[in-house]
Amino acid sequence: MNKPVVRVGVIGAGFVGSALIELLSDPSRHVALVDAATVPLEVVGVAVRDASKPRPGIAPELLTTDASHISEIDGLDILVELAGGIEPARTYIEAALNQGVSVVTANKALMAEAGTALAQLAHENGADLFYEAAVGGGIPILRALRTSLAGERIERVMGIVNGTTNFILSKMSSEGSDYADALAEAQSLGYAEADPTADVEAYDAAAKVLILSSLAFGTELSGEEISREGISGVRSIDVEFARRAGYVIKLLGVAERVGDHGISRRAHPTMVPVEHPLASVHGAMNAVFVEGTKSGPLMWLGQGAGGQTTATAVLGDVLDAARNRVSGRHDVPFSVDTTLHSVPAGDIASVFYISIDVIDRPGVLALVANVFGQHDVSIQSMEQSGVGDEARLSFVTHSAMTKDVHATITDLAKLEAVDSIGACIRVIAGGGE
Amino acid sequence: MNKPVVRVGVIGAGFVGSALIELLSDPSRHVALVDAATVPLEVVGVAVRDASKPRPGIAPELLTTDASHISEIDGLDILVELAGGIEPARTYIEAALNQGVSVVTANKALMAEAGTALAQLAHENGADLFYEAAVGGGIPILRALRTSLAGERIERVMGIVNGTTNFILSKMSSEGSDYADALAEAQSLGYAEADPTADVEAYDAAAKVLILSSLAFGTELSGEEISREGISGVRSIDVEFARRAGYVIKLLGVAERVGDHGISRRAHPTMVPVEHPLASVHGAMNAVFVEGTKSGPLMWLGQGAGGQTTATAVLGDVLDAARNRVSGRHDVPFSVDTTLHSVPAGDIASVFYISIDVIDRPGVLALVANVFGQHDVSIQSMEQSGVGDEARLSFVTHSAMTKDVHATITDLAKLEAVDSIGACIRVIAGGGE
Repeated sequence: MNKPVVRVGVIGAGFVGSALIELLSDPSRHVALVDAATVPLEVVGVAVRDASKPRPGIAPELLTTDASHISEIDGLDILVELAGGIEPARTYIEAALNQGVSVVTANKALMAEAGTALAQLAHENGADLFYEAAVGGGIPILRALRTSLAGERIERVMGIVNGTTNFILSKMSSEGSDYADALAEAQSLGYAEADPTADVEAYDAAAKVLILSSLAFGTELSGEEISREGISGVRSIDVEFARRAGYVIKLLGVAERVGDHGISRRAHPTMVPVEHPLASVHGAMNAVFVEGTKSGPLMWLGQGAGGQTTATAVLGDVLDAARNRVSGRHDVPFSVDTTLHSVPAGDIASVFYISIDVIDRPGVLALVANVFGQHDVSIQSMEQSGVGDEARLSFVTHSAMTKDVHATITDLAKLEAVDSIGACIRVIAGGGE
Repeated sequence: MNKPVVRVGVIGAGFVGSALIELLSDPSRHVALVDAATVPLEVVGVAVRDASKPRPGIAPELLTTDASHISEIDGLDILVELAGGIEPARTYIEAALNQGVSVVTANKALMAEAGTALAQLAHENGADLFYEAAVGGGIPILRALRTSLAGERIERVMGIVNGTTNFILSKMSSEGSDYADALAEAQSLGYAEADPTADVEAYDAAAKVLILSSLAFGTELSGEEISREGISGVRSIDVEFARRAGYVIKLLGVAERVGDHGISRRAHPTMVPVEHPLASVHGAMNAVFVEGTKSGPLMWLGQGAGGQTTATAVLGDVLDAARNRVSGRHDVPFSVDTTLHSVPAGDIASVFYISIDVIDRPGVLALVANVFGQHDVSIQSMEQSGVGDEARLSFVTHSAMTKDVHATITDLAKLEAVDSIGACIRVIAGGGE
């Protein structure tokens, strides 16, 4: 195949789409892009929602409001899907793949929902399906897992993959803010949406964990639900306790091997030791920490969001797909490892920080300690502080099964002397060096 | 081309080579490797220096002590060169490339010396030349620059690319050790060689800067000398001054754009603000920080040395070369940008920390300040501390031309009241968020 030009259609011209088109049209980048793609790239169609909006930098004759037209453009090589959401994005992508058109998308929800099926469809049609921008904004972590680490056995992937929650937790940590105030600030700065549920309840992080896991371990992408805990319950006193103990609280997405064929995938607030590389990832930054059997620890850090930074990830994929297109080949998706099974979050051992408020009277600690003991949860350290007529007990456990810790919490809540359960947050050990 | 197997020859079976062969022969990785390479890989020859040494895991009939035999093996697809040094490595690599055999090497010295010519030779012969392991051990930064960031305009690359010096500076920082003690500890742990010159005088970092720059900016790899300052002059009092001011001292390799067509490449100790991502890179870890015009800041972190971690980088290259081999193509090296010129280190502006010991008597500060003023170097802050009959003056300048700062130092040294010049270290501003 000797294509004189690679034809690119784009669905969605919001922040990312318009930044991408600007990159593709920038004369000062032309030589570098041709070098990288081996032929010139041409934008041949752009689907937008609102035709009346001015679009400087996009030739009017390229615009359409009917996105389904884009994949039907004659001789289309690459469809870039930036509309987001499951439908109609999925329909557009399937239509393109069925015609052998390669697809580049930033759609994490769709990839988490149907990535395996779409990758298979791409392969059957001799097309590529790339989605670097779906995880970590501009951080090129997915290509690294697909290529550089293809021969490595990965043990664990841990990511700060949601900038909104990292911004909120960083504010709580650096300024002692309450959760509500930090959330309000994130909203006023545009880092959090009016309805922040997808971010703060870790739905977004969970989708990204599924995608990272599929490339790191060969797990399926077919809409699996994984264990998910948000950050709305994290209090400033927890952040302060963590600080004094040498930790920072981060929302981590985790995918790790458990034994020979088990994989645990989950997203939850975590106390990370200050000396761990993930602890220094501040504000809206994202980072992915990978532990390989032979490579040792590796970390990627960058801006997790923003139109321009995300557009650079999309552009990297477009160039990859274009190169493949020109040489008439496509990347073969890695096989799903069918021997793997998902290990329930309850069956994972971890150290926990648990904070409870109790009535301050003699004998209460013994009652509380007894509940821990009944569930085989052993206590590493305890700190008591007075709060009016109450006492706050902050425990750090030894490593214990998550389900045993949860059973402990349930039984503690039943004690008449226990006023409230404040926090139950996982603690990870140091690492990275 | 439909190759049933890709044949790999290896020159050098030290830590990296034997770890690579172990990875290639590991039955539990076989499926993943075939997935990644698309066909099985076969090790067909291994050149070693000492034939009498036991080599568990390498079939004896594959061994040879004549490395020149490896590139002559019939049907060889990939030569892995892990011998190091300029010659005879260059001869082996050229012989392979001339026969259209792809080459994977970890040889930073050779790539810095002759990378452009070798890449051109590879291209002319339809072969690949990959060298991921030459910079940052197991960190897959070179592939990211070649692929993910191929369409991005990079403004600056800063790397902690030498684990030995980072270990020494980390020890000085965390434990207040002297340079000599920290070096001795690095030597006893095997992090530093008996003759540490290549590391501590930044020859190693400089070679890596050249390689990073060639991929980030399109500069040539033809043995250019760049500005280089080592860490042997860094004193514990400088580390302590940095700490109090909110900085850590790191040996950075830097390549950055200056104006439209200028590139500055250099390696020197640098005061890095504690909130900068590079500041948290401790011990023997390596990291590369990249600032793209659109991507914003990105950082890669990982182990910079070690046989196994380096072998994973080599393996990533071998798999890439194998995939290309199977589909009968090769990666086209990026063009050298001939419009670029090298900007001398003296013409780069920077903030500097300068420490001098003076005789403690009235009027000395005025004399000293006058010298700064004569060279247009403006002072941001000054701290005086007594040391016996002497006073130590620690200055932080405003941004000034490096040559003006050096001229200031030269003239200060001539003052009768100045006993010694202690330090002259660049300071960088915060970043990364």
